[in-house]
Amino acid sequence: MSLLDQINSAEDLRALDMRQLRLLCDELRQFLVLNVAKSGGHLASNLGIVELTVALERVFDTSKDRLLFDVGHQSYVHKILTGRRAEFTTLRSYGGLSGFPKPSESDSDAFVAGHASSSVSTALGMARARTLQKQDYHVIALMGDGAMTGGLAYEGLNDAGESNEPLIVILNDNGMSITPNVGGIARHLSILRTRAGYFRLKKAYRTVTNALPGGKAVYRFTHRIKERWKQMLLGSTLFEEMGFAYYGPVDGHDLARLEYMLKLVKACEKPVLLHVITKKGKGYAPAELNPDVFHGIGAFDPESGKPPMCAHLPSFSETFGKTLCAIAENEPRVCAITAAMVHGTGLTEFSQKYPERCFDVGIAEGHAVSMAGGLAMQGMIPVVAVYSTFLQRAYDMLLQDVSMLNLHVVFAVDRAGLVGEDGETHQGVFDINYLRSVPHMQILCPANQAELEIMLRRAVLEMDGPVAVRYPRGCDGAFTAVAEKADLREGTDITLIGYGTLINNVLEAAALLKKQGVSAEVIKLPSVKPIDIATIAASVRKTKHLLVAEEAVCIGCAGKEIAALLRTSGIVVPTKLVNIGDRFVPHGAVKRLYEMLGLDAKSLANSAQEVLHSEA
Amino acid sequence: MSLLDQINSAEDLRALDMRQLRLLCDELRQFLVLNVAKSGGHLASNLGIVELTVALERVFDTSKDRLLFDVGHQSYVHKILTGRRAEFTTLRSYGGLSGFPKPSESDSDAFVAGHASSSVSTALGMARARTLQKQDYHVIALMGDGAMTGGLAYEGLNDAGESNEPLIVILNDNGMSITPNVGGIARHLSILRTRAGYFRLKKAYRTVTNALPGGKAVYRFTHRIKERWKQMLLGSTLFEEMGFAYYGPVDGHDLARLEYMLKLVKACEKPVLLHVITKKGKGYAPAELNPDVFHGIGAFDPESGKPPMCAHLPSFSETFGKTLCAIAENEPRVCAITAAMVHGTGLTEFSQKYPERCFDVGIAEGHAVSMAGGLAMQGMIPVVAVYSTFLQRAYDMLLQDVSMLNLHVVFAVDRAGLVGEDGETHQGVFDINYLRSVPHMQILCPANQAELEIMLRRAVLEMDGPVAVRYPRGCDGAFTAVAEKADLREGTDITLIGYGTLINNVLEAAALLKKQGVSAEVIKLPSVKPIDIATIAASVRKTKHLLVAEEAVCIGCAGKEIAALLRTSGIVVPTKLVNIGDRFVPHGAVKRLYEMLGLDAKSLANSAQEVLHSEA
Repeated sequence: MSLLDQINSAEDLRALDMRQLRLLCDELRQFLVLNVAKSGGHLASNLGIVELTVALERVFDTSKDRLLFDVGHQSYVHKILTGRRAEFTTLRSYGGLSGFPKPSESDSDAFVAGHASSSVSTALGMARARTLQKQDYHVIALMGDGAMTGGLAYEGLNDAGESNEPLIVILNDNGMSITPNVGGIARHLSILRTRAGYFRLKKAYRTVTNALPGGKAVYRFTHRIKERWKQMLLGSTLFEEMGFAYYGPVDGHDLARLEYMLKLVKACEKPVLLHVITKKGKGYAPAELNPDVFHGIGAFDPESGKPPMCAHLPSFSETFGKTLCAIAENEPRVCAITAAMVHGTGLTEFSQKYPERCFDVGIAEGHAVSMAGGLAMQGMIPVVAVYSTFLQRAYDMLLQDVSMLNLHVVFAVDRAGLVGEDGETHQGVFDINYLRSVPHMQILCPANQAELEIMLRRAVLEMDGPVAVRYPRGCDGAFTAVAEKADLREGTDITLIGYGTLINNVLEAAALLKKQGVSAEVIKLPSVKPIDIATIAASVRKTKHLLVAEEAVCIGCAGKEIAALLRTSGIVVPTKLVNIGDRFVPHGAVKRLYEMLGLDAKSLANSAQEVLHSEA
Repeated sequence: MSLLDQINSAEDLRALDMRQLRLLCDELRQFLVLNVAKSGGHLASNLGIVELTVALERVFDTSKDRLLFDVGHQSYVHKILTGRRAEFTTLRSYGGLSGFPKPSESDSDAFVAGHASSSVSTALGMARARTLQKQDYHVIALMGDGAMTGGLAYEGLNDAGESNEPLIVILNDNGMSITPNVGGIARHLSILRTRAGYFRLKKAYRTVTNALPGGKAVYRFTHRIKERWKQMLLGSTLFEEMGFAYYGPVDGHDLARLEYMLKLVKACEKPVLLHVITKKGKGYAPAELNPDVFHGIGAFDPESGKPPMCAHLPSFSETFGKTLCAIAENEPRVCAITAAMVHGTGLTEFSQKYPERCFDVGIAEGHAVSMAGGLAMQGMIPVVAVYSTFLQRAYDMLLQDVSMLNLHVVFAVDRAGLVGEDGETHQGVFDINYLRSVPHMQILCPANQAELEIMLRRAVLEMDGPVAVRYPRGCDGAFTAVAEKADLREGTDITLIGYGTLINNVLEAAALLKKQGVSAEVIKLPSVKPIDIATIAASVRKTKHLLVAEEAVCIGCAGKEIAALLRTSGIVVPTKLVNIGDRFVPHGAVKRLYEMLGLDAKSLANSAQEVLHSEA
């Protein structure tokens, strides 16, 4: 029986000695690799945080102390050690364990966390609540160095440092967020890392003096002088200037040292930051070699680290990157901006071919958009490649720094619509509304890679003002006809409207309806702002029935706009809008989520039948 | 003839000698006080920046170099000196000069700027465009120390510092944003300020050595040694750690010194930050004494600095603050959070009575909301008081850190709807949509102070999950009846729906319609999410005609939701939705803007007549 199988509580964990703990860490790594190889998920960051998590669970009581993950995909080890080992095979599947912390799963999950840089803010809120309520627990924010590039982290640190509220920030520094880190802060951290030599010297000195008779007194006496010298020699850190006590850097794979330092910061009665150096992918060679490939990964062969053999279809992201490279060749004004997602958004090739025109700004979506405004104002054509869910961070900047001056900025909105296994925090279901609410914004919705190419070219080279081109994760755009005109498939009984890759389900629904004797006319919208209402009106006048399907929340969705526009044209027919509703969508395979939301072909066909049998 | 009257171009300005320039600064201050006394506007910050603006206009060519104001309300002197002196009497009035920079007004206004902390981002975009296009101009971001508390500023500095792109950031440090600054950064700046003594010594040393024969060589030789010592004695600044060259602090009212330093940083070929110390309200005693009162002010008597005598009606903000104090007395879980707006949101009394429960986080709306999530998670009842337009910054945090866990956080959304003279950047016309799109969010709309009190109590003490209470600027809630039930005024011919203080216009429209022989039923909505559709449906079934008026953009507005809900209930009647449309609203008196938008009583009555005479 493995050690891991015997760990059912924090007490079990605390009962182990150092030798056993090291064995346990090895077992945890094997467990992670074998399981994520099956389920897919975030591997490299979890491999890097094994010892740190074990140390945290031993030093703190995470069922009572509040451990806040920042970008919670590094919470796997925490989940395994807090009673969820058996369910780990259900990771990221519908109804199974979430790949992110979730308070509804366990008392040990203190908060949700999907978007970066928020942990210090929520931690400070919790610390303040604790103090006001005169309660007694520790609050720990565990953030990566990538999250440190986000402005929200700075806002939180700034307030926390001044608050003097006891609060522990652990900086899990692996020198990269998803791809290597950028910006002045990254450089600052790398300077701090080199101070490690100093701390080794300090440790040796402490060991020596403590071993001497009366050595502790000597140590204490010299300590104060040393502190003054340290300040002068090393300068204060950014964190110290913000009001934090700074400890570290400490080797994040040295369990004994980690525990020692965690106990030290636990005793602090002010805001304290512990700088921990870890290696992403630690202990699994393929992940150590290619940490960004193993950041978020599908199923793979645990022996070789290779993905299962299958025909590789180009993802929308790849098509975007390839197309942008081609456009940039002839248009020197084109430049690309991404927020720590060079690889994820498909910009790797662009960044190599046009390094001077490719700006990775770190996890800083707001800055990405405001900077794009500046570039556009001076005559460049910036293309901001960002995931739908993360662009939420820049809503105000879209309004103030791009739309207000009607600047020509193109937004390549990746991972739009359902993203599946990453769940609530990552579904791209709000952008239809928040982008539509931005004056001047035009929104194109390619349904396959060929359309993406055409539409991106048009957005960059022919259109003006802000334009969003939104497309889904992966390559499920099996819709192969390039049909950019709104009308698509003629019918007589009911008009079915969809856009993006969801049009596949709509077409399938039309096929099902045909078998049921219903002739459905399918309209695929190339744009949801503006909407080609003339084509829709002509169709609905003919069919007298309407169904609009979309992967978007109901507020501000295209369907409501269509209904309102038809109404203005005096067209009122039995109508059904099928969408996400007013809710968050949990994790699970996209196919399964379609069923849950009534967006699969069968449900859509049933909804169409309802419309056909309803009164006007 | 005054000196100011003779300044019609930058050349005129450059022709003056130091004595004349000092006189000009005096004249500019008089001009500012006399004009803002009539028009109202931002006074204290503009008084503080007179010398700095004069120096900037002399050293740079703002028609070609790009001067980016951060929170552009300190651009008055810039406007006066760049050809808009004569139009200055039209400041902030409809069709007149904007109180903020506006490229459509002048080539010298490089960008819009209403929300804080964005200047470094847009400046970096412009600097990068310049370099890529091999052009030759300077880019200057002029930001206050308040803006430095915003995470966006940090994101911009982080990227800019690493970019090595020539770029000048001028930190206009008056030790307060609107109210005195908060956070670790404010402390850091105050430490830097004390280093001024060091720089005076340095200046004296330079003067002495330069006066000696061979002194320049001595100065250069000793300079390097000195720099090493300086680094050790003073530590590096936050800005230096981010990759900026740091100069300062320099006295922002010493014109000669300012020009010297501006020429110095102008010659820098890397990112550079110049730290300038100014005094808010400088040169006008009432504003020096009460800088926050004279931050944004209505008309006043320039002699005494007192506002014109008139009966003081309590503003919505005051009622909010008073009510929250009363609630907090009996409910220890209530706490208040504001983003640098203690005074503006009416929290002054609360902050004095309950300092331990009042958190001013600086210009950091995202952090305010995420921290509220942490507080609520641990059992407190946080009330986040923020202006509608600034809450846009926290859209993602509303979704991720409050709504996703359905946490009980109350949002006191001040300055909702039209705000008038501050214009495009400040109108609170997007919140109806973005708040409605947040799952679980409930939105209450008091129409007068008495309702605000009742609704705030209910939101804090009786409701659960996220609740927004939105109310307008000032005290124009002349609607006096406390009518929280949806039905309000019975009629038979048409249903008129409104919410908030706009209900006054709707009631007035009903009165006008009565004179025209039309019996209008008026429904005042107490909530726009959820919407009491039963009451509306009953009314519309009776009147068969509908008009919905609201101060909100059309995407995701309440009117569209009402139309859709009625449609679902099988009610389709002639309908008109009167709202802001899909646009930004310029500056001007709210009354004038109502007319422009068709939201005044007369226009609403006319629209109602259109509905009555249209076909279903």
